[in-house]
Amino acid sequence: MTPKSPVVMGVDPGTATTGFGVVTEREGSLHALAYGIITTPATESLPARLVTIHEALTGLIAQHRPDAVAVEELFFARNARSALAVGHARGVVLLTIAQAGASLFQYKPAEVKQAVSGYGGADKRQVQEMVRLLLNLDDLPRPDDAADALAIAICHMHSRMVGIGY
Amino acid sequence: MTPKSPVVMGVDPGTATTGFGVVTEREGSLHALAYGIITTPATESLPARLVTIHEALTGLIAQHRPDAVAVEELFFARNARSALAVGHARGVVLLTIAQAGASLFQYKPAEVKQAVSGYGGADKRQVQEMVRLLLNLDDLPRPDDAADALAIAICHMHSRMVGIGY
Repeated sequence: MTPKSPVVMGVDPGTATTGFGVVTEREGSLHALAYGIITTPATESLPARLVTIHEALTGLIAQHRPDAVAVEELFFARNARSALAVGHARGVVLLTIAQAGASLFQYKPAEVKQAVSGYGGADKRQVQEMVRLLLNLDDLPRPDDAADALAIAICHMHSRMVGIGY
Repeated sequence: MTPKSPVVMGVDPGTATTGFGVVTEREGSLHALAYGIITTPATESLPARLVTIHEALTGLIAQHRPDAVAVEELFFARNARSALAVGHARGVVLLTIAQAGASLFQYKPAEVKQAVSGYGGADKRQVQEMVRLLLNLDDLPRPDDAADALAIAICHMHSRMVGIGY
């Protein structure tokens, strides 16, 4: 019996745009099962936007039933204001993952870049291109937040495969 | 028939300690119906702590059925790291309020101090003392986060009473 292929979801939280990417491994290569963004209109109140993120992500986790959900660790942001804004969405994302009973893993931004491109200082474009190649996609995964989420999922997949064989 | 006295809940979000205070108005004076803190142990993971905050606050809102929930607006924090930490808890608090169908109001820190002490630059101790006096409490409300939450509730109560008579 072939063991079930692991399914990993990456999430890149943001109040306006939360990226998600679902990756699995088949016969030694990675495949994207789904990716995209959860968007919330700026005309809505912040609590309403957080409810949208919570409901949409709850639905995505129920749909894809990932074995693991990976999110970037964030210690820094450009300034306190943007950190607070990201924090709102990130708090709701972490809550949602925990409520769904999914296993959470966190990686530093440099770990994600290293895992995807072999180089911790890679720029956004390089990461997108490597995500495209690793997942055998015809086109660059867009928008950026979806590509970032796929990169986080790939990072987890790599570290698990290296680690205990997943 | 006497109109129902308004019940206002103030919330002061934090990952380790979230303060709450429930205030009502009877015969022209303010009364505290309940106040306290939701604490989460540092030994728990951040997602688990956010789940605790979500469940406890959901329970408090169901118990007290506030007509309004008031939270401080936060544009600044000492640094990006603390802003991110407060943001996690604040995002979950705003989500919880919206999911409970409660009406959310936000006030700037200086507005809260002004409303409680008549002075936007009041220090923590002065705010605690004024909260004690306004609510006819025998002792200073403690801990700080509970006193802050009561102050936010009082701020909303004052601005509504001045405004449209609630």
